[in-house]
Amino acid sequence: MNHHDKRPTSVTTGPIGASQKHYCAPQGRADIKVPVREIALHPSSGEPPLRVYDSSGPYSCAEFSPDLSAGLPAARPWLATRAGLETYEGRAVKAEDNGFVGEDRLVPPCPAARALRRASGSAPVTQLEFARAGIVTEEMIYVAHRENLCRERAFAQAAERIAAGESFGAEIPAFVTPEFVREEVARGRAIIPANINHPEAEPMIIGRNFLVKVNANIGNSAITSSVAEEVEKMVWSIRWGADTVMDLSTGRNIHNIRDWIIRNAPVPIGTVPIYQALEKVGGDAAKLDWEVFSDTLIEQAEQGVDYFTIHAGVRLAHVPLTANRVTGIVSRGGSIMARWCLSRHCESFLYEHFEDICDIMRRYDVSFSLGDGLRPGSIADANDAAQFAELETLGELTKIAWDRGCQVMIEGPGHVPMHKIKVNMEKQLAECGEAPFYTLGPLVTDIAPGYDHITSGIGAAMIGWFGTAMLCYVTPKEHLGLPDRDDVKTGVITYRIAAHAADLAKGHPAAQERDDAMSRARFDFRWENQFDIGLDPDTARRYHDETLPKEAHKVA
Amino acid sequence: MNHHDKRPTSVTTGPIGASQKHYCAPQGRADIKVPVREIALHPSSGEPPLRVYDSSGPYSCAEFSPDLSAGLPAARPWLATRAGLETYEGRAVKAEDNGFVGEDRLVPPCPAARALRRASGSAPVTQLEFARAGIVTEEMIYVAHRENLCRERAFAQAAERIAAGESFGAEIPAFVTPEFVREEVARGRAIIPANINHPEAEPMIIGRNFLVKVNANIGNSAITSSVAEEVEKMVWSIRWGADTVMDLSTGRNIHNIRDWIIRNAPVPIGTVPIYQALEKVGGDAAKLDWEVFSDTLIEQAEQGVDYFTIHAGVRLAHVPLTANRVTGIVSRGGSIMARWCLSRHCESFLYEHFEDICDIMRRYDVSFSLGDGLRPGSIADANDAAQFAELETLGELTKIAWDRGCQVMIEGPGHVPMHKIKVNMEKQLAECGEAPFYTLGPLVTDIAPGYDHITSGIGAAMIGWFGTAMLCYVTPKEHLGLPDRDDVKTGVITYRIAAHAADLAKGHPAAQERDDAMSRARFDFRWENQFDIGLDPDTARRYHDETLPKEAHKVA
Repeated sequence: MNHHDKRPTSVTTGPIGASQKHYCAPQGRADIKVPVREIALHPSSGEPPLRVYDSSGPYSCAEFSPDLSAGLPAARPWLATRAGLETYEGRAVKAEDNGFVGEDRLVPPCPAARALRRASGSAPVTQLEFARAGIVTEEMIYVAHRENLCRERAFAQAAERIAAGESFGAEIPAFVTPEFVREEVARGRAIIPANINHPEAEPMIIGRNFLVKVNANIGNSAITSSVAEEVEKMVWSIRWGADTVMDLSTGRNIHNIRDWIIRNAPVPIGTVPIYQALEKVGGDAAKLDWEVFSDTLIEQAEQGVDYFTIHAGVRLAHVPLTANRVTGIVSRGGSIMARWCLSRHCESFLYEHFEDICDIMRRYDVSFSLGDGLRPGSIADANDAAQFAELETLGELTKIAWDRGCQVMIEGPGHVPMHKIKVNMEKQLAECGEAPFYTLGPLVTDIAPGYDHITSGIGAAMIGWFGTAMLCYVTPKEHLGLPDRDDVKTGVITYRIAAHAADLAKGHPAAQERDDAMSRARFDFRWENQFDIGLDPDTARRYHDETLPKEAHKVA
Repeated sequence: MNHHDKRPTSVTTGPIGASQKHYCAPQGRADIKVPVREIALHPSSGEPPLRVYDSSGPYSCAEFSPDLSAGLPAARPWLATRAGLETYEGRAVKAEDNGFVGEDRLVPPCPAARALRRASGSAPVTQLEFARAGIVTEEMIYVAHRENLCRERAFAQAAERIAAGESFGAEIPAFVTPEFVREEVARGRAIIPANINHPEAEPMIIGRNFLVKVNANIGNSAITSSVAEEVEKMVWSIRWGADTVMDLSTGRNIHNIRDWIIRNAPVPIGTVPIYQALEKVGGDAAKLDWEVFSDTLIEQAEQGVDYFTIHAGVRLAHVPLTANRVTGIVSRGGSIMARWCLSRHCESFLYEHFEDICDIMRRYDVSFSLGDGLRPGSIADANDAAQFAELETLGELTKIAWDRGCQVMIEGPGHVPMHKIKVNMEKQLAECGEAPFYTLGPLVTDIAPGYDHITSGIGAAMIGWFGTAMLCYVTPKEHLGLPDRDDVKTGVITYRIAAHAADLAKGHPAAQERDDAMSRARFDFRWENQFDIGLDPDTARRYHDETLPKEAHKVA
């Protein structure tokens, strides 16, 4: 038995606390199976199980036994027969895709069988194109049902709760109909990131009139690790509430590891293709060109990546605007593109080829996440000319992408003190035609390394309230090192707090159901229910048991 | 050697990170020694040491060796000769003061020698009385210098930074003069909690035109612990940044342990006297009366407690307003007083004797912290009729206390969703004549037990920005159990983040100095400087060293 055989061969499974994970179908659509998690409450409460939104996939089902080699079953079986798509022989994997790894260290490709698809012509393929054509897709029915699951019980109070909230001009509905979803997608105010080559993903929606979502970043380890370990990072993130996962891996085997992750991912996966393109040219930004970049887009689109961060807003003319910054350009993608522009002294090839990028992404319905390459890396640089010049360019690019049928969200900062957060949201809505905002934090101060999940969780809650549709998490290791399992969990839970606090403040009609269930359990001293209703039953139970008496205090 | 001898006999001392703690005097006042902490920066930075506000007392001085039996030296030596005070023989300690503890388990009183003082007549004794009489006290000079220490370097940009902030009507000065302090105290907009029997405390100020402050709560352990262990809880809290400490101990030995804590406390100490009064009557709220309560006030005032939480706003007529709440009355003091009112069916004796309470507290300059006994314990109960009825009563009581020469701050909630926070601040300012607001969080959601330092840190940052003068910390164990050392540190650091984020957003002219120093250190990869500039150098260093290479990456 060699060293590799001792490594884990599977991932974390099993119910979360005392909850049951189900899949249930909207009326008359047995083919659409929408996840819901039900938390059982003590009989003394007289309350039915509490339904909560759940992004953990089949892994949290009691009976599920994963087979990573086979991948997850399709959550979107209808793709197999959807019109307008063709199956084809994909691009051959090249040595550079896996970082020129030697045969002896090559991770094998995931053997899960699947048909590769792309748009065959000009018929609608993206969710945006369907929406504009007046077509309600299965994905739209799915996300409507998913967003409503916790809303059913709250329906009677919905109008009152919406009125009591403050949503800063959002238009949160009492109940989400598939038609409402279609309208929001059609006007670009929401996206359903769902590559047609990622049928394993359970559809979800990102937009300010829906529940605020959370993204977790993962990356491969510097030392060789097993495939299961890499897949586990994704499984672990979604177990605690990540709605999407960005795979920021670099180096050897990234193509094949990405394959394993996507085939086993029930959530949309995002990437930053410029990272891989840069490695293909030996790490020298000046050597990047359209050929290697476009080839990388196709490579990843065929694998099923659901959204790409594209830093096309970093234009040559913007770079000098960063000269007097305290922290310069801190976005990795931004600094790659700034170096490219400066070394060649010409306009960004991403900007110049933007329509070509759209045409590739449209064929697979890969959504744009327009990167904020000039985001501020410090309080001192917040809301400066460079940041806002890029945001204006992102607005211009949004319209081009929409014209070409692509779904778009916009990435946002970064480091911003509290009093400068709101104008970011307002400017983003105005410049980008209400395309969903997707922000990293923002961190509201720079002085607490080791606690940047908190400095950024404060900013995330506020900007989520103001209208940001998805929050990119930050872990306690930010600025210091690579997060471990505990850091990832802490980051995800912190961001679920921020997202939920935002939903509550916006007046989401069902958000308070969970708070109220918790508060009733507190008032009744139903300790086990308090643990299970919470975001992290394990930690709550452990903290309680450390200092307070055990069983006697935990029953109703 | 018995079990007790193995327990710690001292407390945590030594410099925090690579910093030096000094005491320095305002020009011409060598008797006034104001603490400042200086963080040394690498020569390559070309920057002088960074000065930061520091509340950790002599314990963080390199050479300090504490003698808990002797107590700290007086930080206010001028009290010994201040006019209007008389020394006298204090109240004799009674068996009930220490919870009727048996001789064998009695903790001895702290032997530190001191003269007991009280006001001798109608001459000014409280900071409010001095301020109104136009007299600038040593305490006012002290706090002005203390608030300015970090401001000196920022003076040139002060006006610009204030203008760039958003302070919601606060009037933050470019530089704090002793006369400005006097004016703020005179109008009741700030307090200097400083019992004349607590000369060991280093004066500090609480008001919305000063730096936002943080309080940490401590309490005695259920199992017997050494005096040093109890004092250490206070020392540990202030090491990480607590500006005041509330001692919420109950049970045996509390009088004597409180004595040890106060004699060794360089920060103001607050208490909730009704807790001890309740124990003196065997825990039956109905048996409380003015005699036992007033005797407890005198007992604690003589010991040197700097502020008392007094729940005089819980009136008989308010109690029915809580009937339909999800979580009823969650404040311990509030529920004691509600039970008292209901069991006797008469008006609160704290409300009826409020002027008598003022007269006792004035004699020692004990500040009021008017308790919010009806604060909401859940999102569902936020901003309800009970909470706001009490706040109106607190406004009425504020004016009475001011008329009788007492300093006042007002306690605030609790559990409040983000969109309902601001009205709390506005209503408090309006009802209570701008008396400083002192809030617990608020927690912006109920769904994350184990993470309530974060749910409340979000609310604390926001309400601090809106105008709250001091934030009462919440630890990760809130709602679950008793905090340990790590929890206390996490709670304090989280609240320092919230307070600093608020200072930044308000436009405090020097707040950004620390962020900027951190950001420059980041840009230069001065790792050691990054650790030391941060709120928690130890954790930052450890996180870095867990995953990244060591020495090579840490020098400039």
